[in-house]
This record gives sequence, structure tokens and C-alpha cells, in this order.
Amino acid sequence: MGALSSFTCGARDAKGGMGIALPGPYQGGITIGYIDERNTLRALPFFEGSDSSESERYVQGAEGTSGRLGVIQDYTREYLWATDRIQTPELDFEIATPFFPLPDPEQASPEELAFACCPAVHLTLRFKNAGQTPWRGVFALQIDNRWSSLGQQTHGSLIGATSQNRIGFATRHPMARSFIDFDPISAINRKHSTPEFLLGPTAGLEIDVPPGEEVELPIVLGFFEGGDATYNRQTIYYYRRHFGSLSQVLQYGIENRERYLEQASRRDLELSQASLNEEQKFLIAHATRSYYGSTQWLWDGMKSVWVVNEGEYLMMNTFDLTVDMLFFEMRFNPWTVRNVLEQFVQSYSFYDEVFDPQKPDTLHPGGISFTHDMGVMNHWSPATRSSYEVGGLDRACFSHMTCEQLTNWVLCAGIYLSQTDDQEFLRRYRGVLIECFRSLQNRDHYDPEKRNGIMSLESSRTEGGGEITTYDSLDHSLGQSRENIYLGGKMWASYLTLQSLFERCELSSLAREAEAAAQLASATLASGYDESLGYIPAVLDGKNTSAIIPAIEALAYPYLMGLEDAVQENGPYGYYIRTLKKHFSNILNTDFCLYEDGGWKLSSSADNSWMSKINLCQFVARKVLGFDFGEDQLKADRAHARWEREGSRLSACSDQFRSGVAHGSLYYPRIVTNILWLGE
Amino acid sequence: MGALSSFTCGARDAKGGMGIALPGPYQGGITIGYIDERNTLRALPFFEGSDSSESERYVQGAEGTSGRLGVIQDYTREYLWATDRIQTPELDFEIATPFFPLPDPEQASPEELAFACCPAVHLTLRFKNAGQTPWRGVFALQIDNRWSSLGQQTHGSLIGATSQNRIGFATRHPMARSFIDFDPISAINRKHSTPEFLLGPTAGLEIDVPPGEEVELPIVLGFFEGGDATYNRQTIYYYRRHFGSLSQVLQYGIENRERYLEQASRRDLELSQASLNEEQKFLIAHATRSYYGSTQWLWDGMKSVWVVNEGEYLMMNTFDLTVDMLFFEMRFNPWTVRNVLEQFVQSYSFYDEVFDPQKPDTLHPGGISFTHDMGVMNHWSPATRSSYEVGGLDRACFSHMTCEQLTNWVLCAGIYLSQTDDQEFLRRYRGVLIECFRSLQNRDHYDPEKRNGIMSLESSRTEGGGEITTYDSLDHSLGQSRENIYLGGKMWASYLTLQSLFERCELSSLAREAEAAAQLASATLASGYDESLGYIPAVLDGKNTSAIIPAIEALAYPYLMGLEDAVQENGPYGYYIRTLKKHFSNILNTDFCLYEDGGWKLSSSADNSWMSKINLCQFVARKVLGFDFGEDQLKADRAHARWEREGSRLSACSDQFRSGVAHGSLYYPRIVTNILWLGE
Repeated sequence: MGALSSFTCGARDAKGGMGIALPGPYQGGITIGYIDERNTLRALPFFEGSDSSESERYVQGAEGTSGRLGVIQDYTREYLWATDRIQTPELDFEIATPFFPLPDPEQASPEELAFACCPAVHLTLRFKNAGQTPWRGVFALQIDNRWSSLGQQTHGSLIGATSQNRIGFATRHPMARSFIDFDPISAINRKHSTPEFLLGPTAGLEIDVPPGEEVELPIVLGFFEGGDATYNRQTIYYYRRHFGSLSQVLQYGIENRERYLEQASRRDLELSQASLNEEQKFLIAHATRSYYGSTQWLWDGMKSVWVVNEGEYLMMNTFDLTVDMLFFEMRFNPWTVRNVLEQFVQSYSFYDEVFDPQKPDTLHPGGISFTHDMGVMNHWSPATRSSYEVGGLDRACFSHMTCEQLTNWVLCAGIYLSQTDDQEFLRRYRGVLIECFRSLQNRDHYDPEKRNGIMSLESSRTEGGGEITTYDSLDHSLGQSRENIYLGGKMWASYLTLQSLFERCELSSLAREAEAAAQLASATLASGYDESLGYIPAVLDGKNTSAIIPAIEALAYPYLMGLEDAVQENGPYGYYIRTLKKHFSNILNTDFCLYEDGGWKLSSSADNSWMSKINLCQFVARKVLGFDFGEDQLKADRAHARWEREGSRLSACSDQFRSGVAHGSLYYPRIVTNILWLGE
Repeated sequence: MGALSSFTCGARDAKGGMGIALPGPYQGGITIGYIDERNTLRALPFFEGSDSSESERYVQGAEGTSGRLGVIQDYTREYLWATDRIQTPELDFEIATPFFPLPDPEQASPEELAFACCPAVHLTLRFKNAGQTPWRGVFALQIDNRWSSLGQQTHGSLIGATSQNRIGFATRHPMARSFIDFDPISAINRKHSTPEFLLGPTAGLEIDVPPGEEVELPIVLGFFEGGDATYNRQTIYYYRRHFGSLSQVLQYGIENRERYLEQASRRDLELSQASLNEEQKFLIAHATRSYYGSTQWLWDGMKSVWVVNEGEYLMMNTFDLTVDMLFFEMRFNPWTVRNVLEQFVQSYSFYDEVFDPQKPDTLHPGGISFTHDMGVMNHWSPATRSSYEVGGLDRACFSHMTCEQLTNWVLCAGIYLSQTDDQEFLRRYRGVLIECFRSLQNRDHYDPEKRNGIMSLESSRTEGGGEITTYDSLDHSLGQSRENIYLGGKMWASYLTLQSLFERCELSSLAREAEAAAQLASATLASGYDESLGYIPAVLDGKNTSAIIPAIEALAYPYLMGLEDAVQENGPYGYYIRTLKKHFSNILNTDFCLYEDGGWKLSSSADNSWMSKINLCQFVARKVLGFDFGEDQLKADRAHARWEREGSRLSACSDQFRSGVAHGSLYYPRIVTNILWLGE
């Protein structure tokens, strides 16, 4: 957690391994198996070249060595929330990635913080030799760099290897031996007599498995970035406050292994006991791993800095992801939400002006908003600038997302404040909330008389262009901001949020104003319903006819803030809610927003559907709008799980799918919106 | 110098760029050119995809941009010692890699040291617009990471970009503008209005070139590794003692640009005035760049640590390369030779025993020797161990090189002491020299009566196997150590060296003993001459019949130590010298040791010829043995230069060639043996 590190392993016939700050799986070799009585290496198929039809074959190692290799093709797999368990009759392999609430670093004890930040993954290999002759269990990683002996570094107290003081593996099993060589086949069949041949890129552990015995080999994988974590603003990984070196990480990981495994077991149990189908559980477990692999818990010399990187793109704290990952973070560690909101105010807020796209040269007052992100690939952007947004584009990818990011600050703050009792945050940011309110209104219209509650004016940052939403790679149905019913819904939810917060602040006049704005927005959105179409078209420009699922997305916020009245069919926004129900039930079919496989298609006019948003809208449809999909539920979940398993086979959990195949937003953190399912 | 950094550029249709600690060229994109009146980017062909038959074509950039690209295929190139100059009528491009003696860090002033260690390369782009319409000159680098604006970091005092605080480029030309985008075509034809689009992996500079004008754009490339430089033993790059950041490096490089260019000019002049043909000058210039790109000047908290990395293999201070690069380092900075010799004594010396290969279980006293290297890819090996050598191999690659490394310490020390007046070094290491002498003798035979002056016994480190020489990938003609006439020659030279040093130490009895050993070696080697073959077979085992050029290699040492008597035909070793002349003149033909193209083939029985050793032996043949090759000289030089230019097209200067094609030891530092040609 917070180490921007990953051990990617488990796809058949694929590369994988340990990496720090990577946009995808490390492209190395992983060997997990055993050497049987015939000196054949029998290995799980989690390496490139394992997809062979031959059950056993000779393979060449480096420098003329060769040996027999047999790939274990049959295994069972339990992909639990924090434990990935692969089992065969001869070999069990478990990867534990324990997670639990990160304690608030301003309040927790050093020991709690050390336990929470230690960048380690826990493996267990269990070799079950039912035969008559000895085996050797083997674990090995092949990388692009070289290894050093951990035994040498720790005077024998740990067994294993490290590379560049950045990655390493260790055990303390007294019977384990470490090796280094060109490749596993060369190591196993080595012609020389030096177990740790330092010229080789492969390092591993081996252990004797006597006939008739079971041997369990615990291994800790450790990660360590000892230098600066980020550029343009100096930070280190938080774990460096507790661990001086990679070997200390490994040592701590080993000493506390049982505590970590207990945490993993708790999570495993929690998810397995949930009233969800197996596909849903898979999606949650998969999303969780991809999320944590993207997180950075940093230290800037004075305080913790929380960053979630945007998967393969590695943009830092992309705000339109923050608002989706919010629900997950609120469940585990609300302080990270507060932390990111404060970073946005402090360094990535700005003031703009707005214009009517019909008269782009006439600027009107705009107001505060926030950047799309804070930088990319550990390079902080200059204050008030994102890495992503550029000027001069009219509703195209990389344009500004000014209005949407404004709603995101309000909605994140609203959720945070509704689920915590952080009076100080409310006191400190009351002014920002008021500014957000004025800024939202100004993006509707400069003339209060002409406001309709949703966005009509564009930010001056677009330099005469047009803003986009988070759905940047979709067509205008979801990509264009102004007059968009998706963003309109978020404006409605923002006004509701502000109303509620202004009431808490006893700013009753503002609260009434916000309520009126919410009413206006809901009326505009509901009145957009087109009887002939049977739904509200995505863009209220009188031309667009796309049907979009995310029209309902923003209902999540008032619901989760406890503003349940607002989402009742007979509540103050009943007409809007009833209209959305009608909208939704009319489009969730293969004519509009379903794929043939039962998977959800966010927009009827774009073959590009985002898992994070599908999962969020599934929650809204079921929990907020009360839909029961019956057998179609499982069909959809099966499709979505298959998209991830097969369509994103080499990229962990991905977000953007075209007809079930991941084509962008790979190795992505955002899909943890599905944490909401646990609240159903 | 000493930054283990490279800017690799200049091969047609190839990737290149800036890198630190890489085993080969950085795999990025380099754009050098200008945008002409038709908005066509006209670029030098130093990028992948430049090898197109079309003179001009449309190319696609990222995100739907496109533009016209014309590749400049015709240019002249002057590849001087420190300046690489590419010229076309419209555009000149110069890369200056200035080098000069590195001052002894224990004696030089801080300013001298800062100037010597500053990790920068100096570019000059000259745009010559003879047309009627404005051009824009362009320089850009495309990398795997992302960039930050240098203007932002330096409040506008520098223009350029940096990535990861590790690499960057800068200018102070007031008219230059920096840009960041996905690729050069997208930047030039950008649809948006943000010059520094931080999401893109390409950064560059552009500058207006008015019609009828010449515009010169000076650019400094800077490198910086701010963390630990090495593992298992903490060091930083020496430049970190003077420069706190990459932007300081760039600033210093710009401030001192003229001084650096003056140094480059001096070297250029020095080589161009040498009495060598153009092919020889090319080989020296090429070797020099590859050497410096492999060097590391480190600081361990108390003293400087000099490391030369082994090209693509990145082994650290490989001793059998040190002894070849010795001549270059002695010319420029003898303290680096002393530094490496001291490191070997301090951490990478050991004591072994020896055995007769007929009776491998009976061990006899051995003595001191030194490891093959000190580690690999910045991972220091444990003391007394190399990364390369492993036990249990019988005269095969990765076996021990114990006897040869022993001669290497003696020969390096001999050359160092003969060309400096370092009394303190001699005083301090007198004992080591005596130990080396005994160790050499013990490797000949444990029974003094049975000694013949050359190696017959194997190190116990081989565990019953057999030692190899530096020529590890050749057949036994050069690869096997014992009874080898190449290594025998180095033992002879080592004994001569020891005799001379013992005399300086007034250890006359030892000096006489060493002289006798040298006599014994020379007699054995000379008597190996086989009249029927017409040469001394490579291995004096009565079976081998290979003819090898490096039989003469070791003559370089006494000659360069001023022991000229020893290499006279009528001197004390006259019979040996005359025999070697006969040997050499009988094998330098296409029946034995010449390729058809006139290039030298080190061994008649192996198609694997090493440029570093060819160049060294060319020096010995001409300067020490007095051969005049007439027209064959140029033929050979042309062949060797072609091997590098075409056979090693993508790997800078390489060492191992099979029939003119580089197949190992790529991007290699060792070829600077050809510095000796300047002394002819």
C-alpha cells in the first residue's frame, strides 16, 4: 500500500515480476515449481513460453546448458480479496497482498505506521512430494538487471537476493538456499560450482523436499526506492521514515509475516462472506489489487502526501479518478481523501473566466476550479497546471475538464464531511465551498435569469475551445461537458452537497440558493426527457440522441451522504428520479446500452465502456433506484469479469473496453468503485 | 568523463538518445532539423524510420496529428577526436564531447575538479536559411519517461527540459523556445495551444530562422544521478560533490561552454595533426568515445573511486580490460590507474593454491592474485570475488583468470611506476610486488627445477578445472591459460617488470631471480618455434597448431616501460625477439591470421577477432618489432574501420568481430589501446 509497487504474476504464458513505478507488469520471468525425480523442472505456467502443447521438453539455457522443463497446466485458483491461491496436487502457491486501513499519520503510533507502510508482499510455496525420491522446490525471478546475495548483506540472517537495493526476496527457512545464474534451467543444471553466479539476471531460492513430505517455503518480496520519489517537489516514500534499506523491509516483513497474513485472511473472509456472486467478488478483488499498486504514500518533510497514479498513464491524483476511488478510500482511510482535497486547494486550484461558445471573445466571471491532475510519472506539474490539459481544443481529448473537476472537489468534500466528523476541515474550507458554489453558478450562466442549473459556459482555459468530461475518449454523448446530462447530474449533486454543507455551517441563505440551483438542474435534466426516444438524450442541445447510462451516476453522492430524500421517487426531486428510472429502464437493452454478452455499454453511440463507471452505475441502479436485474445481473457480471480476465489478460484490472477488449486505461486503479457493492 | 553516461546519435535509421548506466544506446528518438517554408520537417536521418525511399511523406503523429516529413539523406561528416560534425547546405550539427586529463582529485583545486567532472555534452545546431521565407530550427528527444520544463525550474534563466532530474537539455539563446508533446510531428503541427504539453514523451527546442540568415543554437545536454551510484558499497558520482542538481550541471555547462569547446578543439587538432591515416584516426576517435561513456568517477565519502564498466556487460573494472586501457589512462590521468590498482589490492586480491591438472587433488602453494572484476551493473561483488568467475569449469568461459590477472597487476604497476615518479606507491606496494613474483613462480611449477617460466599449474579456485585468459570466447589457442604463449609472453613481461622494480627497490637478489625467470620464459617460448609450422603454436602442449598474433602482444610492456634492450633483436632476449619476428611474419597472411579483407585475425583457428587486441598488436608489430606493412597497412585499417562502421553500426565501438561483424563486447571501452598509435 502506498509504494507504487507491484508483483504481477498469474497470466499464462506472460511475462511478469516485481516493479516500482511501472505503467504495466514488469517484463521479467517468474519460475515457481519443483525439480522432480527425473531432474525435470515442473513449473506453473506464469512465464512467457509456457504455452506449449508438449507436456515436457528440453529447453536451452544460456551458455550451452539445457534441461527438461514440464509446464504445470492444470491448477485451481482462488482469487480472494487479499490472497491469490493456486493449487495443484504437488504444489500450492499463494500471494498475499494484505491491506487494511492506513492509520492517519498525524495520529497513529510509529509502530502502527511502520506496519502499514512496509512495502512487502508475502508468498507461500508449499511442495507436496508424495513420491519416492527427493524433489527440490524452486522460486526464481529473472530481471533486466543483476542481483546481490542477501545472505552476504545480512551475514546470513536472511536468505535471498536483492537488485539495485530496489527489489528483493527473502526467506528465513533454514533449509532454503539462494542461487543466482543466467536462467533457472542453467541454475538447475549448472556446469559450474558457484551457486551465486553474480553475472546472471536470475535469482531464486531452492529447497529440498524429501519424499513423502510437505515443505512450506515462506518468501517475502520487498520493494524500496531510496532516493527521491518525485521530481519538481522533493518527496520520499513514507516507508523511508521507518525503513532505512531494502533489507530492513525484508527483515520487518519476515518478522511480522503472521500479522500480515492475518490481515489478508480477514479481508479474504470479509469478501467471501459478502452477499455477492463469485464474479462480483472477483471484480472487487481484482480492482483492489490494481488500485493499491497505483498508490503512493509520500512524505514531503513535513507531512504525508497521498497520490494515486493513473494506471498505465501514471498521472498523479487525476481528480476525476479520485472522485471514483473516494468510496474505497472512505471505507479504509478517509484521511487520504482529505489529503488529496487539501493538495488540490493548495497547489492545483486556480481562477478562470468563462465564455459563451457563441461569443468566445467575451469573457465573464468564472471562479475557482481544480486541475485534472497534479503531474505525470512522478513529475509534479507546476502549481495550477495539470499534465493533461491543454488549451485551444474544442471538446477533444486533452481539453480542460474545469467544470467537472469543480464538481469533483465539492462531491469529494461532501462525502468526506458526511462520513467523518472533521469540523476543522469544514471550518477551514468553508470559504472554498462558497467559492465553488459561485463558480458552479457562473459556469451555468452569467445572467442568473438564464441559468438552468447545468453547465453552458466554457472555461477561458480552453482558449475558445470547449471542455470535456472524464469520458475523454468517448464521443460527445459523454465527452462534451456543456449541456451534458452526466455532468448535469454531477452539478445537481454538487448543489445538493453545498446546500447540506451550508446548512451545517448555518449559512441558510446560501443553502436556500443552492437548493434552488439543485431544483433548477433537476428540472432541466428531467425536462430533457424525450418521449419519442424514451430517454433523456445525452446532450441537451436538441440534436444529440445518444442514450447514456451515466445519467444516473451522480445519484450515488446524495445517497451516500445520507441525503436519501433527494433520491426518493416521492421526494423533493421525485420527478427527476422517476424520469431517470424511466430513462434507465428504457435504455438497458441491446438496442442501446447493453452488449450482446450482457455487459453494460455506457453510451449507445460509443463502443467504449468503462468498468469503473459500469460498476458505479450498477450500484446506483440497484441500490438507489431499486432495480432488480434478476438473471441478467449474473449475465452482466460474468461478461464484465470475462472482459477483465480475457480482454485485459496481460494488464491486470483495466477500465476502458471496446466490445469486451481492453484498449486503454490498463493496469488501472479506478475500478474500486465496486467497493460500493459491499454496502448493498 | 566519469559519468557512465552517453548521448548516442549518428547511425542512420536507428534509435538513440541520452542514457545513464546503459548497456547500449538509449532507445529513443532524436530529431535534428528544421521546418521549411512548406511546413515540412526536414530532419537528419538519425532516427528509426528515416530510411525511406520517399524524399518527403506524410507521417502520423499521436492523437490524429500529421505532418510532412522529409529526411535529409545527404550530409558530410567529420568524426574528430572530440567533435562529431555533420554538415549539409542548410544545417550543421555538432556534438562536442570534450576530454582532457582528469586532475588528481587529491591535489587539484575545486574549480579544476568541477570543470573536469561536470557531466555534460555540448551540441551546436547551425541553421542556414538561404530561402525567402522563415524556417524554424528544431531539436527534440523522445524518451520513455516524461519531461518537466526547465524554464519553470529556473525561473526562465534556462530554456529546455529535464526528465526525472536525470537527463536534460538547455540553452540560453534568447530566441529559443522549449516544447513538450507526444512527438515532433505533433508538436510542430499541434492542434492545441500549450507549447509544454506535459503528458508527452518528447521535448525539444525550436528557434526562428529568418530568411537569408544563419542562426546558431547552442545546446547543453546534462546527466545527473542524484542517488547512490552503486550497491553493496555506497558511492555517489564525483560530480555530486560539485553539483547539487541537474539544473546546476546545465547551468555550469552553459557558463563554461567556450572552455569546453576549446578543449574539444585541442583534441580535434591533436588527432588531425597526427601522422596517421584517416581510418586510424577514425578508430581512435571512435574508441575514445566508447571508453569515456563507460567510465565512472565515484566518491565513497573519503576518496575517489575510479571504475570503467565493461561496455554492454557493465562489469566493473574488469582487470583484463584495465591492462589494455592502461595506455590511454596513463596518457591522460595516471591517478586512475593507481586508483584501480589500489582497489584491487584492498578488496579484490586473494590467496589461492595451485594444482597440476594431472593431479588435481594435490594442492601446492599458490599465492596472491586478483579477481577478474569488481562487480556488475553497479553491484559491487563481495571482497575477493568477481561477478564473472565461477568454479568447476575446465578452460571454458566464466572460469577463473587467476594467472592472467596476476600478470595484469604487475604490468599495470610497472607501466604506472615507469611513467610516474610515485615513490610512495612503490614503497607501499613493494611487498605486493614480491608476493606477485612468488605467486607467478608458483603457477609455473612448485618444483623450481621444473619451472619453464610460463604457467603450468591451475588455481585451486577452478576446483579442479582449468583457467582461461581474457580471450574467453575463443578456442584454446587463446582461451586456455596454461602453456599458452600469449599468457607466457605476459609472464615474461611480468618478470622483466619485476626485475626492473626490484632493482629500483635495491632488492638485487630478487631482481636477479626475476631476470632468470624472464630468461627461462623467453627460452621456453622461443624454443616452442616449430620449423615445420613456421611459427610457435599457441599452446605448448605438443598438440596445438594454432597460429596467434597475440604471441607478440606482451612486447608492448617492456618497450613502454623503457626496457628497450629487452625487445632488441640483439639484446638479452634477442633469440625470443627474432623468433617472434619470424613467427609473426609467417602468420600474417590469409592462410593464418588475415581475413580476405585485410583485417587481422587474432587466431588462425577462431573466427573471433578483437579490435582492442588487434590495435595493440599492430602497435607492437610496427613500433616494437619494426614491421612496415606498406600498402597492407591501409587495407587493414580500412577493414577494421569498416568492421566498426558497418559491422557494429548500432553498437558504437565494439570489440569482438566474427568476419567483420560485431557479435559481442558491444559498446565497449577497451579499444583505446589504439591510443598507442599516437606514439609511433
